[in-house]
Amino acid sequence: MLEWIKSPADVKRLSKSDRYALSEEIRSEMLEIVSETGGHLASNLGSVELTIALHSVFDTPKDKIVFDVGHQAYAHKMLTGRYEKMRTIRKKDGLSGFPRLEESEHDANCAGHASDSISLALGMARAAALQEEDKHIVCVVGDGALTGGMCYEALNDAGHTKTPMIIVLNDNAMSISSNVGAMSKHLTKMRQSNAYRQLKQNIRRMLEKIPKMGLPVVRLLSKIRDVFKSLLINDLFFDAMGIEYVGPVDGHDIEEMIRVFDRTKRYDEPVVVHVVTKKGRGYALAEDNAEAYHGVQPFDTRSGEEKKTGGKSTGAVAAKKLISLAENDGRIAIVSAAMLKGTGMDAFEKVYPERTFDVGIAEEHAVTMAAGLALGGMKPYVAMYSTFLQRSYDQVMMDVCLNNAPVTFLIDRAGLSGADGETHQGIYDIAYLKTIPNLVIASPADTGELNGMIELSHHLNQPMAIRYPKSLPASDVEKKIETGKWESMQRGGDVLLIAAGRMTEIALEARRMLLEKSVSAGVVNARFIKPMDETMLKDISKMNLPVIVLEDGVVSGGMGEEIMRKMRDYGFKGRIDLVGAPDAFIAHASISEQTKDNHMDALSVSMCALKALGKEQK
Amino acid sequence: MLEWIKSPADVKRLSKSDRYALSEEIRSEMLEIVSETGGHLASNLGSVELTIALHSVFDTPKDKIVFDVGHQAYAHKMLTGRYEKMRTIRKKDGLSGFPRLEESEHDANCAGHASDSISLALGMARAAALQEEDKHIVCVVGDGALTGGMCYEALNDAGHTKTPMIIVLNDNAMSISSNVGAMSKHLTKMRQSNAYRQLKQNIRRMLEKIPKMGLPVVRLLSKIRDVFKSLLINDLFFDAMGIEYVGPVDGHDIEEMIRVFDRTKRYDEPVVVHVVTKKGRGYALAEDNAEAYHGVQPFDTRSGEEKKTGGKSTGAVAAKKLISLAENDGRIAIVSAAMLKGTGMDAFEKVYPERTFDVGIAEEHAVTMAAGLALGGMKPYVAMYSTFLQRSYDQVMMDVCLNNAPVTFLIDRAGLSGADGETHQGIYDIAYLKTIPNLVIASPADTGELNGMIELSHHLNQPMAIRYPKSLPASDVEKKIETGKWESMQRGGDVLLIAAGRMTEIALEARRMLLEKSVSAGVVNARFIKPMDETMLKDISKMNLPVIVLEDGVVSGGMGEEIMRKMRDYGFKGRIDLVGAPDAFIAHASISEQTKDNHMDALSVSMCALKALGKEQK
Repeated sequence: MLEWIKSPADVKRLSKSDRYALSEEIRSEMLEIVSETGGHLASNLGSVELTIALHSVFDTPKDKIVFDVGHQAYAHKMLTGRYEKMRTIRKKDGLSGFPRLEESEHDANCAGHASDSISLALGMARAAALQEEDKHIVCVVGDGALTGGMCYEALNDAGHTKTPMIIVLNDNAMSISSNVGAMSKHLTKMRQSNAYRQLKQNIRRMLEKIPKMGLPVVRLLSKIRDVFKSLLINDLFFDAMGIEYVGPVDGHDIEEMIRVFDRTKRYDEPVVVHVVTKKGRGYALAEDNAEAYHGVQPFDTRSGEEKKTGGKSTGAVAAKKLISLAENDGRIAIVSAAMLKGTGMDAFEKVYPERTFDVGIAEEHAVTMAAGLALGGMKPYVAMYSTFLQRSYDQVMMDVCLNNAPVTFLIDRAGLSGADGETHQGIYDIAYLKTIPNLVIASPADTGELNGMIELSHHLNQPMAIRYPKSLPASDVEKKIETGKWESMQRGGDVLLIAAGRMTEIALEARRMLLEKSVSAGVVNARFIKPMDETMLKDISKMNLPVIVLEDGVVSGGMGEEIMRKMRDYGFKGRIDLVGAPDAFIAHASISEQTKDNHMDALSVSMCALKALGKEQK
Repeated sequence: MLEWIKSPADVKRLSKSDRYALSEEIRSEMLEIVSETGGHLASNLGSVELTIALHSVFDTPKDKIVFDVGHQAYAHKMLTGRYEKMRTIRKKDGLSGFPRLEESEHDANCAGHASDSISLALGMARAAALQEEDKHIVCVVGDGALTGGMCYEALNDAGHTKTPMIIVLNDNAMSISSNVGAMSKHLTKMRQSNAYRQLKQNIRRMLEKIPKMGLPVVRLLSKIRDVFKSLLINDLFFDAMGIEYVGPVDGHDIEEMIRVFDRTKRYDEPVVVHVVTKKGRGYALAEDNAEAYHGVQPFDTRSGEEKKTGGKSTGAVAAKKLISLAENDGRIAIVSAAMLKGTGMDAFEKVYPERTFDVGIAEEHAVTMAAGLALGGMKPYVAMYSTFLQRSYDQVMMDVCLNNAPVTFLIDRAGLSGADGETHQGIYDIAYLKTIPNLVIASPADTGELNGMIELSHHLNQPMAIRYPKSLPASDVEKKIETGKWESMQRGGDVLLIAAGRMTEIALEARRMLLEKSVSAGVVNARFIKPMDETMLKDISKMNLPVIVLEDGVVSGGMGEEIMRKMRDYGFKGRIDLVGAPDAFIAHASISEQTKDNHMDALSVSMCALKALGKEQK
């Protein structure tokens, strides 16, 4: 059926039985595609029926459907004219794994980070109201994302001004990691309330029949309404926020959802439609272990085994080191924001559950809570992806660093990060963290350095950030690391490459390439982005060789510019070139493609060196 | 009485009548001090009794009192050994206007930004629990700050894990601006519930007497408990979050508060104590107009008139321009986060209330909601202080700039910002905004340029940030501004000064000083920090004069480093010096003191120029 669905208009023509057949077809397509390309599986399988129901009722692109995070939008892509391109998903020049404005008029925004959809939808709803446009704004937000404070800020605003919009709470009882928090418990109560559902619907219908009349009658009736409302004990939270609540609705029952959306789209105030879905629905392996199937590598659909196994993740190494330190130090604790598994810290949790705090999708709170732990005498490590730490820029500055609280940030997925694209790049952290006083910033070249940096952080009585990519060259020997000390890895008489983190490997490769051209390149491992090794910088400045700085982050505001300034202060008159990411959003592709396309690979570096030496080959 | 209170131990020795006398004494002291030094008045007057009650029950520094924002901590400072220094408050080398770790062991943290106290306190409470320390953790958070999403993230976490802590909700029915949002309405309901209070207390007492027994009985009793609870309709929200709620308590009744704190400190779970206070309490002028008396300049206590009037604020100019544009363009809207008055945009609200959205202290939501407005076809302007926009770094990038949504940021209080100190400096925005693709960043030298930049933004179909200090030189002539075009203000043959924003005035002054030494300095107004004027940079590079770049922000990662890199790319071989803020937190002092102390004043710039020319005077 999928091949003839060219737009949501075709979805609207389907019969009831067609809709179910379609859902089965989408699901099997999805499984096949993701097993080949990798991507977000469980969340996409879970929201197939919901997406069909949405496109059966709402008219995109006039109406807007804002997907929170956006990793549940595969069915949406298939139903909006992109079915044939689905096998290019997450590949260079192919479809993005997330909604993208430039990809389709049916996508309402570029998504990727969590908890922002209600705010975006409220803005769109207000724009529609102010311009007297007749359109419906819907956002789809998971229970996991609802942990994020932005959702609450948005609900607070929406419930106050009563701008009509539909907030679909796509509740699969599980965010990326197992869901946590009081809100999650509250939702569980709401889900389990099927016994009360009929009663509630009756009361609600009765309440809806209360006509508008003179003031005293209204007052009386509204008192009655309040009493009944207080019996609807399942929507305490939304009631407090001034938002209407409808649910729970079975998120795999397309017909029920169509009825509910048809009804709620006529509300003249914001309404939450609580839809309960099962993550991984229809694929037993994913249903049973949705966390493992959240974001996957290509795999065999029958056995569930990954087709190619990646190397050991950097996070796993960090976790192992911390487990060993924690054995003799009861102060060590882990804080994460729904990224325990992704950062490898689930291993720490297994050993020290009482010292592991996964606060859910709530990066700001995670960082400030860690500051509180540190001020209270603990030694917390905050494990987070680079891109999501962006949410906590102010908290890193004002709660951790202004208090000089000895929190260590383990920043995973730093640098170019591949198939997830624009919203998951870890290329900004050097530049934005560098603005923050008191913070030590380090970047290991291999796992031996990572272990040494964690060892150092353990003794350091101030905030520290250790940034690293998902995988690093392995090295079993823990290096002795001193704050602010760089390492001369290779000497060379023609040109000097200064690199940090994974870029040191690229520098060494460039060195090999240059040797073949009889150019001798020195390589310096700039382990510390802050503070820098001023002694070594002075020495380098005196050498007066051409210098190339390599960093796995944006050039503008990055490490290279600061090195350039300092070397100038130290009297350097030679040439410096900077290699790093451009001032642009970098789309999905493999990490090596992104590295190459942005001239950050070894070949580009070697060409840059030859150019600096006037030995360009044309 | 105040002069012999050297520490909270002395507070604990007071009789009931002493405590009231003390509150009167503190209040009159406070009024006198703030009228002389300026500072936060209304919030401090409102929390005098609360502070006395807290120090009567809790033992700082063992126990911790975390003040949210911290602008209500004057009474706390007076009672913790700092009474004699109160008249130095907010002055260079004097006391800070906020709690500071380095100032007193009784301060639990360095405060300044809103909504972080529950997270910090939860971290401290967990640290105490893990280390089996017997101490109490209290945080004091205003109803205004409760709008911030971090509070919700923290409550969600605290309500889940049940770590004991006391959250004092200091509810004065008003944040910095008039309070907004559904939560505010909810609190109002709670405040007005005095009629129910006695009933609730009775029920609560009854509930507390329910003993622990066998499972079936417990189930029955807990059902009964739930029914009664649903009658306690005032704590819907905290109930949903899994947090105990006690209140409302009269925040000017010291004895009642002491009783409540004595009881709640024995709870073995987190509890919210809802204390209702009156902002400005005891000073009629401030009670009647708490917003005007939130943060004040020195004033006459009898008339309430400010002793010296500052110039017209930059924000007022921006508002006037927007009001005139909005007359012919219904798309123009203002978004703010409890800073309408501070940013001057209350003037816009008066004319176009339906297009003005003050979302309360919720910077993240404000930015993303504005992105939604823009994607929906509106032309939103987000008016916010530089330091508070830090909360929205990720939203500016992911919701505004990745969507290329034409949102304009009016960033007030940019640069060094004076008496509020470390937590209110606007010196990081150039560096952190510069990392964000698609964003145009401008900084006006005077109000004529500001108007021209707003005119430009009106036609610009992409995101733009206009950053400016509280006051700028006035200029009635609106300048014609072109994206990315700099202006040569003065020609000069010896040295070239490139300056942005208010630093152009300093550059011109330095030029005058240099002329007296027979040095001719050119001055370039680098109106656009991004994109830069590449044509002019090329020309400058060819001139080969010594260059000094002046920016009202941190040097590391700032505009100067990028200029240095680009001029190098254009073949410049001369000397460049960078003038700007150091990599450090900058404490309270006047703006001119901060400018001078950080070598950013005209004299320092002229000395720097002389040095570059080898004409140093020793």
